[in-house]
Amino acid sequence: MDVELVNPFIDATMKVLETMASTKAQAGKPFLKNDGMARGDVSSVIGLTGETRGTISISFTEECILPIVSNMLGEQIAELNEEIKDAVGEIANMISGQARVRLEQMGRSLKAAIPTVISGKGHSLTHMSSSPVIGVPFTTDQGAFTIEVCFEE
Amino acid sequence: MDVELVNPFIDATMKVLETMASTKAQAGKPFLKNDGMARGDVSSVIGLTGETRGTISISFTEECILPIVSNMLGEQIAELNEEIKDAVGEIANMISGQARVRLEQMGRSLKAAIPTVISGKGHSLTHMSSSPVIGVPFTTDQGAFTIEVCFEE
Repeated sequence: MDVELVNPFIDATMKVLETMASTKAQAGKPFLKNDGMARGDVSSVIGLTGETRGTISISFTEECILPIVSNMLGEQIAELNEEIKDAVGEIANMISGQARVRLEQMGRSLKAAIPTVISGKGHSLTHMSSSPVIGVPFTTDQGAFTIEVCFEE
Repeated sequence: MDVELVNPFIDATMKVLETMASTKAQAGKPFLKNDGMARGDVSSVIGLTGETRGTISISFTEECILPIVSNMLGEQIAELNEEIKDAVGEIANMISGQARVRLEQMGRSLKAAIPTVISGKGHSLTHMSSSPVIGVPFTTDQGAFTIEVCFEE
């Protein structure tokens, strides 16, 4: 997989969380995901097409996403409700949008499908491609989350 | 939402399950999904782009998918393992592919992103769009499953 395609998603993730939720997220070392086990309690996935086809996802634990969305909305949210799902879809949409602007500037044009939000304690995501899936772990003061990026060769 | 876009996915679902798994699936009455609660134990979602953007998903309960994949592979599978996930991604991919061929014949061109498979007892999917999401319930001898189709206006 062309790793040039991954960095814009890492940068956009940090920028979106900082801007939307005053949350500083530190990117850890990207890793090759081999086991389909980026578990989360709430995730969003967006399909991408264009010069290549792909998919990106972001998965949060409950402990991590509650304070992030509480920051976004300026009110305390204590459970994984509809507001959390909407916010996670919106975060994924903005990451995808900002990353695609940067990719466009690099001459790589991708279109995004509608985001889907997945809710359910400890679910796992598997991107069905023969190409490698790159996982990027992030840490925040509140907890960890992961993004995954997969593009076909 | 343009309902003309939904029928090819219904037909493709029945055809793919019949061909791949000798499973007869009866389509029930399509419904407007308002509550984000098509729960499943294993799902696949595929983003679509082109003249419009959208997403399709298929969600199975464990009791329904185990015999379907056992039929596909010709061996008894008793738990939601990697083979089940691969098979659900493949089923979604084939439904998307067959439906898009038919849509192409109708003059509507859509590209598909990489399928993502979600695994986790009782997870729910929410497609983040202001457009209606159409759910279609299916029944088989082994149990029920649901497809969801969402396209922007």
